Amino acid sequence: MNYSLDALFKPNSIAIIGASNDPTRVSGRPVQMLKDAGYGGRIYPVNPRRDSVQGLRSFSSLGAVGERVDLVLIAVPASGVEDALRDCCAARVGAAIVFGSGYAETGAHGRTAQERLAAIARTGGVRLLGPNCMGMFNTRERAYVTFPTVFSADWPEPGNVGLVSQSGAFAAFCYSRAKLEGLNLSYGAMTGNEADIDFADCLEWLIKDETTKIIIGFMEGFADGPKLCRALSAARAERKPVIILKVGRSPLGIATASSHTAQLSGEDAVFDAVFAEYGVHRAKTVDELFDVARLAASGGLPVRLRLGILTISGGAGVLMSDVAYDCGVTVPQLPEPVQRELRVRVPFASLHNPIDTTGQVLDDKTLLPAMLDALCSHADVDAVTGFYAGMGLSDAAPQLVDQLTAAAKRHPNVRQIVCALCTPAVRDALWAAGIPVFGEPSRAIAAFAAVTRIGQAFTRPAEMKPAPIALHLPVAPAALDEEHATALLSPLGICTPTARRAATPKEAGDVSEALGFPVVVKVLSPALAHKTETGAVTLNLQSRGEVVEASLSMLPPRNDRLKGVPVTGLYVVEMKMGVELIIGIHRDPVFGPVIMAGMGGIYAELLQDTAIALAPVTPAAALGMLRSLSGFHILEGARGRPRCDADAAADAISRLSRASLPAECHGIEINPLIVGAEGSGAWAADCLVT
Amino acid sequence: MNYSLDALFKPNSIAIIGASNDPTRVSGRPVQMLKDAGYGGRIYPVNPRRDSVQGLRSFSSLGAVGERVDLVLIAVPASGVEDALRDCCAARVGAAIVFGSGYAETGAHGRTAQERLAAIARTGGVRLLGPNCMGMFNTRERAYVTFPTVFSADWPEPGNVGLVSQSGAFAAFCYSRAKLEGLNLSYGAMTGNEADIDFADCLEWLIKDETTKIIIGFMEGFADGPKLCRALSAARAERKPVIILKVGRSPLGIATASSHTAQLSGEDAVFDAVFAEYGVHRAKTVDELFDVARLAASGGLPVRLRLGILTISGGAGVLMSDVAYDCGVTVPQLPEPVQRELRVRVPFASLHNPIDTTGQVLDDKTLLPAMLDALCSHADVDAVTGFYAGMGLSDAAPQLVDQLTAAAKRHPNVRQIVCALCTPAVRDALWAAGIPVFGEPSRAIAAFAAVTRIGQAFTRPAEMKPAPIALHLPVAPAALDEEHATALLSPLGICTPTARRAATPKEAGDVSEALGFPVVVKVLSPALAHKTETGAVTLNLQSRGEVVEASLSMLPPRNDRLKGVPVTGLYVVEMKMGVELIIGIHRDPVFGPVIMAGMGGIYAELLQDTAIALAPVTPAAALGMLRSLSGFHILEGARGRPRCDADAAADAISRLSRASLPAECHGIEINPLIVGAEGSGAWAADCLVT
Repeated sequence: MNYSLDALFKPNSIAIIGASNDPTRVSGRPVQMLKDAGYGGRIYPVNPRRDSVQGLRSFSSLGAVGERVDLVLIAVPASGVEDALRDCCAARVGAAIVFGSGYAETGAHGRTAQERLAAIARTGGVRLLGPNCMGMFNTRERAYVTFPTVFSADWPEPGNVGLVSQSGAFAAFCYSRAKLEGLNLSYGAMTGNEADIDFADCLEWLIKDETTKIIIGFMEGFADGPKLCRALSAARAERKPVIILKVGRSPLGIATASSHTAQLSGEDAVFDAVFAEYGVHRAKTVDELFDVARLAASGGLPVRLRLGILTISGGAGVLMSDVAYDCGVTVPQLPEPVQRELRVRVPFASLHNPIDTTGQVLDDKTLLPAMLDALCSHADVDAVTGFYAGMGLSDAAPQLVDQLTAAAKRHPNVRQIVCALCTPAVRDALWAAGIPVFGEPSRAIAAFAAVTRIGQAFTRPAEMKPAPIALHLPVAPAALDEEHATALLSPLGICTPTARRAATPKEAGDVSEALGFPVVVKVLSPALAHKTETGAVTLNLQSRGEVVEASLSMLPPRNDRLKGVPVTGLYVVEMKMGVELIIGIHRDPVFGPVIMAGMGGIYAELLQDTAIALAPVTPAAALGMLRSLSGFHILEGARGRPRCDADAAADAISRLSRASLPAECHGIEINPLIVGAEGSGAWAADCLVT
Repeated sequence: MNYSLDALFKPNSIAIIGASNDPTRVSGRPVQMLKDAGYGGRIYPVNPRRDSVQGLRSFSSLGAVGERVDLVLIAVPASGVEDALRDCCAARVGAAIVFGSGYAETGAHGRTAQERLAAIARTGGVRLLGPNCMGMFNTRERAYVTFPTVFSADWPEPGNVGLVSQSGAFAAFCYSRAKLEGLNLSYGAMTGNEADIDFADCLEWLIKDETTKIIIGFMEGFADGPKLCRALSAARAERKPVIILKVGRSPLGIATASSHTAQLSGEDAVFDAVFAEYGVHRAKTVDELFDVARLAASGGLPVRLRLGILTISGGAGVLMSDVAYDCGVTVPQLPEPVQRELRVRVPFASLHNPIDTTGQVLDDKTLLPAMLDALCSHADVDAVTGFYAGMGLSDAAPQLVDQLTAAAKRHPNVRQIVCALCTPAVRDALWAAGIPVFGEPSRAIAAFAAVTRIGQAFTRPAEMKPAPIALHLPVAPAALDEEHATALLSPLGICTPTARRAATPKEAGDVSEALGFPVVVKVLSPALAHKTETGAVTLNLQSRGEVVEASLSMLPPRNDRLKGVPVTGLYVVEMKMGVELIIGIHRDPVFGPVIMAGMGGIYAELLQDTAIALAPVTPAAALGMLRSLSGFHILEGARGRPRCDADAAADAISRLSRASLPAECHGIEINPLIVGAEGSGAWAADCLVT
């Protein structure tokens, strides 16, 4: 069942089973919408109790239509949905939509009913959108198979922005907002419970569609991580920006989501990692979703975070500089000779970049073009963001549009971005020249940064993933102590400090002399996850005597925190010095193996200074993870400390990421990974298998 | 010169020196604006070359007017400004405005010219707005003494929001945006270079003005911190919310600001501390400025971060839950019996809070009121934010307005906040009922959190500040070593570990035995700020022998990092164990003494996990500073560690904050302050005077 969703998105014919003659009813609205919008295909109301529905001939059954129909809306009461879907299968239609609710979102009983629907569709070879969904729309062929009233008038021009949303009401909101903002959509699907057609399916179709250039999405959760990754990979290959508002980031959001949908959340941070890998922009607000979409939809993708800023308000220039700094955007200075040339004309203006035009720009019509040319030709920027305040509402608007349009033509490689209050006509005129308009200077800068990061991700060559390495547990999970866990790592080639097992304190003393001092001594036990808290580890022992004494004091009866804990021996380990990291691999329920790296120490752990990525990762990608940590400066030798072997740490992360975990094993955590001085290496000083 | 700014904000008469007959010129526009807007006072163009200006009688000089004029706009070329200002003084006018630029913003020469203007005004008893400013507006008496064209038509209704902006163009942008959004302003001042009248003066006047209920501000910098604090304190006393977009947060922003204004930035974090203390909301974007203003201007201030959320889109409910979580807003569950009652009517809806109304709310007209009542009466919330998607654009809008208005009346203690796309008429109808409308769900929640935090700050009783304690340097600054610095602290009553000076390693050994082990030994020198980096400190010495050996190895010739450093002795100090903080006091150029507290350790220092406040602070306020640190959990005993004496740490911070620094001294830093186990105390283990 992997064939195209053309029947859903671009149907040549649409039947509505249960079509109502009353256009205000949910089962009547789509008929009215299709007629009003001027849908060019054939519309077949199916209603055995009427000869005509809203002026169209009505059919007694789907079979009576006498044509193989592309898309069928099932708009009958719950009790009739399964029969109607069977009729669709019998009539070999392409796709069916079920609006009705009361399925998986309501609990176990509904889930069973939904599984029945899915099975009928699958067996019958019909693609199913829904249930508990709001259908689809197609602004190009004017197919509106949905019911919110916002879709019922004032049909928008077809555009290049595709929409996929698991929430129907949210999609309807986006549709209205897009119309208000003059952002034109191409196709939209509201996937609801996703019994069959899901978010990734729709994404994939929109990526293949030639008229859709960018895709915005609203997602609450997604169970099939690899499928989503395939779709996102296709988007990157086609250079189509994908912007997703994935909600359920917080405990409260996840609780709310679980109470009203059947979506599996997965770990939110893993979605971040996946989106980062594929160059998807994850929006946190509706504004951001639209801002990034608007900029991406208006033209090519910048690839460098270098921005010219021009303002008719010095104050706005300061604000925009702050936001540029926050977003990691460089605002390169205009070369001094270029400034000098301009200064002759505007002696009081600030001309470094940001350029403060001063009010003179309103009187001297040649000033703005000269300033734009200076920034575009001499500041080596990928875009110029201009703050023109209320000019888009004023008499000066036509001149502004002309001058910006001309500048955009003169400098095709530098995007023009406008921040101004504009009338819709002014906004649309700028849009026609590929110039997006923002009402808020901060948001324009943030959108530039976001779109450039998409451009950078699309330019980055896709990494060759290293091959996984199968691991095998040396003993049963319940018998796994630290020595076994360390042994588990050996096929990965991760360095560990030299270590010896000892049966008694005396033997520990003996082996310590063979290892050389200082050493660490630990109590071995399959039941000990937290050695520090239970007094089962002693660091920095300098002599045989200290080792014996420490061993005695760590064991019962002297250590009563280990009373009743099964002890399998003592572990004498070469003491390594360096900066501590925590690295781990575990299986995410949605996306599979995930590699984590973070700074060690209680402070770093409390702040969760960690980075995660889909496993496996190359050493270069692992180094990128380390660089993203707030504590990376410590590895680099902050405050006069020695520089650490970050390459060795990255190598260890990459090696751990290749672990193909045994089925019994949820994850492996190395805590700490001790990173020595530059060139010396990194060692897994403790390892926990969960 | 501390008398009222009534003459500026509410002039009964306005003269324009240099008034042009051409209404498109900067010197002609104000005449036209005053006429067009229907300004009720008297307008006196002063232009010796004309008998009339734009149909009004023109006067040859200010003296010829024959009335004592309240407000004079000086609109003559730069060379005539000083004479015109002298005329204003001679005519004993109330206030004068100078639009012209070329003053302090252009460098030393302009600064001198500006100082001359200020001196003339001061001597003559005339208040001066500007130079390099855009004047003022008054929507109530319709006085517009400004020139951007956005002020030239479609005069808005007077409102309750005052505006002060150092940037004129930015204020004009805000004025336009406020009109578009239906947020009505009362008075506005654009202060420019602030030769006399400044941001704080205008703020103070607006606070006293009865029609102004809230104030929004745009600020690039402010030199007189105590004056600003007095104004903000008055705002808090009058319960008038102040929302300020203070730009120049970042290095790039500060650089941009310094290139175009004469404002002193001060340390940005100190502005944060000041704003937090007075309950000022600091907006980071224009959207945020308007969002918080809109909510604050629409009615009373909530005081609890407890919110009901109701949505016609479950997806939006998840988004709003995420944002509520981010903002620290609680979304309390609706009691189960109340949910049960509603569930009878909407079996498939999620009813915990967020309530997902489902589409049924469109069909069943009694459902929305029932749900609103449930949240308002039974969820113990201060506000209900409802997401109504595009309903404000649809046929359902009148019903929505009626039902929300009725709910607001039934539950006067619960604010209704609407997120919806609305026509201006629907928006204004809701506003008339005290219900603000947001187009973006995330922003509505964030605004609720911000306004509630203002309400909380206004409810908090103002703290009694402890009295400062004068400190005196025991020796010349150049001779100050650690023992002297520690002695400097003694009037403050901050605990320090017991310590003894020793002249030689042998004497250090002797005194260590008197102190008891373990001890720390340090090299004393007035030139040593970084003892760890130069090997001038050894921790955890356990015996006399270790002390002597460590002392020898820390001194030259064995320690060549101290070669050439003047050594004044050795310092043997009792070794205290605990969590390390850094605390310090220093003089901010804008606000005066500022107290800082942060977590110690390299990681915390790198992340700058610090809190600052205006000094002095009470122990309770100091504890609040500690609580705001990310690392506070460590003091509380995270991960099985012992709980630390946070009260003792707060006491030490409060004591240090009372230090009245000697003039030669920029600040004092205690690093580390060692915080022992609960009940044991906190000790200044090292002290640096700068």
